[in-house]
Amino acid sequence: MKYMKKSFANMEPYHSGLIPEGIILNANESPIAPPKCLVDEFKKAVNKIEFNRYPDMDEVKLNEAIAKHYGINPNNVSCGVGSDELLDVMFRATLEVNDKVLGFSPSFSMYQVFTELVGAKYIPVYGDSNMIFHVDDMIKAIKEYNPKLVLICTPNNPTGQYLSKSDVRRIIESTDALIGLDLAYIDFAKEDYTKIALEYDNVIAFKTFSKAMALPSIRLGYAISNKDNIDMLNAIKAPYSVTTFTQMVGEIAINHFELYKNQIEEIKRERERIYHTLKERGYNIYPSEANFLYVLMDDSKNELLIKNKIYIRKFKSGVYRITVGTKSENDSLLEVLK
Amino acid sequence: MKYMKKSFANMEPYHSGLIPEGIILNANESPIAPPKCLVDEFKKAVNKIEFNRYPDMDEVKLNEAIAKHYGINPNNVSCGVGSDELLDVMFRATLEVNDKVLGFSPSFSMYQVFTELVGAKYIPVYGDSNMIFHVDDMIKAIKEYNPKLVLICTPNNPTGQYLSKSDVRRIIESTDALIGLDLAYIDFAKEDYTKIALEYDNVIAFKTFSKAMALPSIRLGYAISNKDNIDMLNAIKAPYSVTTFTQMVGEIAINHFELYKNQIEEIKRERERIYHTLKERGYNIYPSEANFLYVLMDDSKNELLIKNKIYIRKFKSGVYRITVGTKSENDSLLEVLK
Repeated sequence: MKYMKKSFANMEPYHSGLIPEGIILNANESPIAPPKCLVDEFKKAVNKIEFNRYPDMDEVKLNEAIAKHYGINPNNVSCGVGSDELLDVMFRATLEVNDKVLGFSPSFSMYQVFTELVGAKYIPVYGDSNMIFHVDDMIKAIKEYNPKLVLICTPNNPTGQYLSKSDVRRIIESTDALIGLDLAYIDFAKEDYTKIALEYDNVIAFKTFSKAMALPSIRLGYAISNKDNIDMLNAIKAPYSVTTFTQMVGEIAINHFELYKNQIEEIKRERERIYHTLKERGYNIYPSEANFLYVLMDDSKNELLIKNKIYIRKFKSGVYRITVGTKSENDSLLEVLK
Repeated sequence: MKYMKKSFANMEPYHSGLIPEGIILNANESPIAPPKCLVDEFKKAVNKIEFNRYPDMDEVKLNEAIAKHYGINPNNVSCGVGSDELLDVMFRATLEVNDKVLGFSPSFSMYQVFTELVGAKYIPVYGDSNMIFHVDDMIKAIKEYNPKLVLICTPNNPTGQYLSKSDVRRIIESTDALIGLDLAYIDFAKEDYTKIALEYDNVIAFKTFSKAMALPSIRLGYAISNKDNIDMLNAIKAPYSVTTFTQMVGEIAINHFELYKNQIEEIKRERERIYHTLKERGYNIYPSEANFLYVLMDDSKNELLIKNKIYIRKFKSGVYRITVGTKSENDSLLEVLK
């Protein structure tokens, strides 16, 4: 690519390829649509769109709805195109070339991309021989490398490991570095401790409408932090990035978050069923507090799944992530993974 | 802002403030909604959204529709969250710290923001004493500064000046630097020469659904260039940034672009009416090929407009941009600007 700057020479255009027909368990999507009464409201909202006007660039009503959900101030909220946009903005706002970024590994692959985009250095902190992360290892690495930014994804994508509130506190309190606390999957875990971000100067929590709220189609995420950090994100992020329809849908959905409780519980029950079934069958599967499961298995198993039009995520040979599907989808999966 | 990197110390969160009630002529929006039969199709499209699935990250159907509109290959198209996202991606993909960027001044203010975000240097090329840009001045500045990137906005926001296809060719052919050709307003001008981008290695054209197509609410823009440059943008831009609904609406709208012809003509007629009326009244107003007019006038005139709930864009004392409104909105404007 002639005009690409030299330091990006290894970047390649990413293509997801054709979406196959079948059982799609590869993108950590919700297998269940949002509650029908909400979808009806989303459809009605379209009638209120002024198509020829820009969206509200301050996302006032949406920020207020999110703030109300947590009982916090709208000044502590900023919305973006998925949490991806806000994570990217955090990297751009805070990192100089060659600054260090720490994160557990494996984790959400975009952290490394965002790091490369700003010319910083991503330093992975690995789990033990069982791929379990330890807080003490992270604290030790922070002391050793003195990073500007530390990423904590909990429950972690793709391994599913959950760090408790007190574990996260120990990391936060060990450093003055900024902590990006990615809670995309926390609604499937024991406790949602999003508001911990407001107890410290150095924490920005990231949440999304794409997982528990079953709305990846609208591309909406948000950051929660103290006003100083939110002002920083707002100073750097692009104006008007969240569309009018997305703002409307997001507001309706979070105002009725309680309607999602049943489907979240169903996904958690199904997750446990898949875990225990495959565990009993001798699979090397990891406990998860998210809507997916990490499994090390022979590639021939995946080929069998594909033959049955069941698509899970392959990271590399032998390393897979299965998104929890509906009961019947999971039945089909378990039928194949004997 | 404690965690903001030092070089961004002067960046401030931007707030548009409350949107006032009244006649809104400040954001270069279309005063006319998209044709009703299209809006009906947009509303129907909502029924096809799979809310719990991610958008197509390759925007296949939308890219095909845009390519068909121009009679080009879908490989020459990339979509983003407004043309803003794609402009930002171009800056990020191509510029190292301290690289030079050239553009006429005044022009679209985001060019300078994008430049600062990557730590490059923006060098403005000014017009003559009548604020008219000259191609020779740009060519001379390119030779003098040897920029990596040159921005050409035609018709230019905010002055409205249109550079002809042959003028633009002269700039393109004078340099091997990458040319960002921002054609956001070209549908209101004498000739749409978007496809010029495919005749050269060093041109990326940017277009938007926000202006002539009256769809700023959906935040959709696209780049047109050779495959190499499109691959570069796709390698750097965030996956899944364009929502499902936006992809659907964009596809419908561009498939029926001919339905916009009447309203585009009406806006052009109204632009000429405002221009000639104010010119005759002695206003210092600039000829424009866009959907807005640049005018230098006393601030007291603006105060009078505000008193009448008519809101235009103020850049600084004495410097204004008026978006062309509907006939009746423009009547109200001209009633006040005696």
